[in-house]
Amino acid sequence: MQSEKTLQELFHDTLKDIYFAEKKIVTALPKMAKAARSDELRSAFEKHESETQEHVSRLEKVFEEIDATPRGKTCEAIVGIIEEGQEVMKEYKGKPALDAGLVATAQAVEHYEIARYGTLKSWASELGLTESVRLLDATLAEEKKTDQLLTKIAEKAVNQHAEAAE
Amino acid sequence: MQSEKTLQELFHDTLKDIYFAEKKIVTALPKMAKAARSDELRSAFEKHESETQEHVSRLEKVFEEIDATPRGKTCEAIVGIIEEGQEVMKEYKGKPALDAGLVATAQAVEHYEIARYGTLKSWASELGLTESVRLLDATLAEEKKTDQLLTKIAEKAVNQHAEAAE
Repeated sequence: MQSEKTLQELFHDTLKDIYFAEKKIVTALPKMAKAARSDELRSAFEKHESETQEHVSRLEKVFEEIDATPRGKTCEAIVGIIEEGQEVMKEYKGKPALDAGLVATAQAVEHYEIARYGTLKSWASELGLTESVRLLDATLAEEKKTDQLLTKIAEKAVNQHAEAAE
Repeated sequence: MQSEKTLQELFHDTLKDIYFAEKKIVTALPKMAKAARSDELRSAFEKHESETQEHVSRLEKVFEEIDATPRGKTCEAIVGIIEEGQEVMKEYKGKPALDAGLVATAQAVEHYEIARYGTLKSWASELGLTESVRLLDATLAEEKKTDQLLTKIAEKAVNQHAEAAE
């Protein structure tokens, strides 16, 4: 059975993927905060930056529970989403639709994380990693909350843009 | 105001992104169906392939409502997610955890789409694109339903894997 790729290996591989992603997000968020036109969006990004640092720490505790060294593995999905975000920041710099574009990028990031944390939590539960289930669930809840907050901000941003265009 | 990048342009740009993504997904799903170990997962991928073809047609109608030619623009996020999926298919080929990995990939795809359709629907509504709101909402509902179905299949696959390992 040693040559079999097991759920434990898949869990470890996916953990490396989201660890890389979270660290990438920590570096992207200050740039997004700086680019944001509205104070509300800027402060949402700033708040989420400190949450994301906590998510990184939680993942390190999950690595600990499986006796592995915290190590990332390039996550092409998050690299792609963040590249698209950088393109939006460049193309819409100083333009009315910039914030709407930033929110869209951030929501794509959140949904990637919601998918990954949902998967990891389910696998951790199956593998009997009690502490990891708790940690992954805490982060999952925060990602969902951030996504909801972004939806609210998006609605406002869109309305403001519409008013500005009148 | 002509040099201003507006919400309409952002809508059009994001539409090209998801149009590319859906077309990419149409080509990825038969490979995922072929790789799946369980009949249930295979048939879920096959069903979603025909749904995805319908999503492409709906997007073409959205392009029509904004008087634009349907055209995709490379979406690095979906390229990245699908590449990760191909890696899983290669590394876990014939192995017990393969289906769990396939479901994880598919759920990352679904969440990317849920984020994008949520954004597009909200912008379409703001832009007064009544028919597009209806079309985008129909697809959004199907993506959410597929994500829920995959969660159910994942739970079963994980259980079967656990039983096989006993």
